[in-house]
Amino acid sequence: MTYCVALRLDAGLVFLSDSRTNAGVDHVGTARKMSVYEVPGERVMVLMSAGNLSIAQSVRQLVSTPGAGPNLWNARNMYEAAQVIGNAVRTVHAREGDTLERFGIDFNVSLLFGGQIGREPPRLFQIYSAGNFIESTNENTYFQIGEAKYGKPIIDRVINSHSSLDEGAKCALISMDSTLRSNVSVGLPLDLLQYETDALRTGHFVTIDESNEYFNMIRRSWGKQLKRVFEGIENPVWFDAENIEPNVLSLAEARNQSQPLRVVRPTDQATTRQDAASAPDDSQAN
Amino acid sequence: MTYCVALRLDAGLVFLSDSRTNAGVDHVGTARKMSVYEVPGERVMVLMSAGNLSIAQSVRQLVSTPGAGPNLWNARNMYEAAQVIGNAVRTVHAREGDTLERFGIDFNVSLLFGGQIGREPPRLFQIYSAGNFIESTNENTYFQIGEAKYGKPIIDRVINSHSSLDEGAKCALISMDSTLRSNVSVGLPLDLLQYETDALRTGHFVTIDESNEYFNMIRRSWGKQLKRVFEGIENPVWFDAENIEPNVLSLAEARNQSQPLRVVRPTDQATTRQDAASAPDDSQAN
Repeated sequence: MTYCVALRLDAGLVFLSDSRTNAGVDHVGTARKMSVYEVPGERVMVLMSAGNLSIAQSVRQLVSTPGAGPNLWNARNMYEAAQVIGNAVRTVHAREGDTLERFGIDFNVSLLFGGQIGREPPRLFQIYSAGNFIESTNENTYFQIGEAKYGKPIIDRVINSHSSLDEGAKCALISMDSTLRSNVSVGLPLDLLQYETDALRTGHFVTIDESNEYFNMIRRSWGKQLKRVFEGIENPVWFDAENIEPNVLSLAEARNQSQPLRVVRPTDQATTRQDAASAPDDSQAN
Repeated sequence: MTYCVALRLDAGLVFLSDSRTNAGVDHVGTARKMSVYEVPGERVMVLMSAGNLSIAQSVRQLVSTPGAGPNLWNARNMYEAAQVIGNAVRTVHAREGDTLERFGIDFNVSLLFGGQIGREPPRLFQIYSAGNFIESTNENTYFQIGEAKYGKPIIDRVINSHSSLDEGAKCALISMDSTLRSNVSVGLPLDLLQYETDALRTGHFVTIDESNEYFNMIRRSWGKQLKRVFEGIENPVWFDAENIEPNVLSLAEARNQSQPLRVVRPTDQATTRQDAASAPDDSQAN
């Protein structure tokens, strides 16, 4: 599997991808999933992929060796460029889809594609297996592909479009750390790229491996501090005793209405067995 | 969808379920997903379900109205009781599977089942659509069903088998809060049940709705404190300047090897277009 996340902030774009690829658990490898299409001063575009690696690589190959017509290098805006990617997905589907289906393999690829062309503000798209795509809006400032769910809550809680690029990078790395811990199918090294609005050239980029000081600091301190916050939150107070006011989980007046769905033991013989070896001594209490 | 989580701690068992059920986005309802089978002093068992509600309800019906042979009320241990549930899943599959398949509906149900019978320690099982099941071990102290991924990282980080029942309840509620925030298909009210090892009767139980003081405190303060921890973590230092030692994301000596995968612009004509309306002024720089 894969985990890639891209943020579209006022300050620019942040892209982060892992590099784990596998076809079944016995065949785990490393493949970089982020590629950069750049004409400094004119356009910067970043493509990240998840799903079937052979499909993703074919899409990359197609958009990197354009024929006639619109392509990433002559697209007039990011919408046109996203169409180029979507059309490449459709071309690969036309070529490979039937054969893959005969082998029981889903045509499964998903792509994140963002960047800036000329004076148009930076834009970010998520492109699906059918070649259709959606665009990030101010209300929806990020997209994820692959193993997206583990790392979603932290982004939902701390990022909005006013966050800085460094905050975006920090949050993306925490989101990745949560995913790495909960899912073995996502792995180092990571590719992290920041693009600053209107720079029209690639900003900070780093490949992060086990020795990266900053990511190791995040891995150590995020978990530790999360644990400290967890310990700092009061345990529930189950009964609203007289002197305890806050944090009551179960109020006396509500407790009568708050009952589990109990299934009553039927009274017929089917529910008893003479040979119940481990039946406790006090079972006749019922 | 659904989110249910169960923890098997040395101190006992914690069960938490949401109550959102839906068949497509236009048909969202509420159904309780936790049921309790209890003979005080002898046995306590709790069943939670996710997946197709009609299948889950049929399974519940079957195990609640036992015929001859082993059932939840006469099972000698939790393994036998889990087999009763697994067999009920298989009975429903034999009855419904073909018809559902003809309507293109997967036979999809997953169950968490835990409790204690007699002197055997508490046990926890996850039961699959095929009626097979796995058991929680000391290394794997919890199971989740339904929308499990959003709420997994926090459990991985703070819970182990030595955690107290109240810590377990607190963590389960934080895990549920993260899931509720990231996924609209999970919803209140929640059912929370604690079972204390060797009590052989249901422990604390509460149904949590929007007015629950403790859960609201968690919702407010967890997000707020997470944000504070996030802000407290240093932003990355992109360049290892002389006086800045820690938190360097990109070391000078590594920077030369750390380059994005750049796709070079082909030199043929296909990549230029005369009518490029938004081509920036400095495009001839390349």
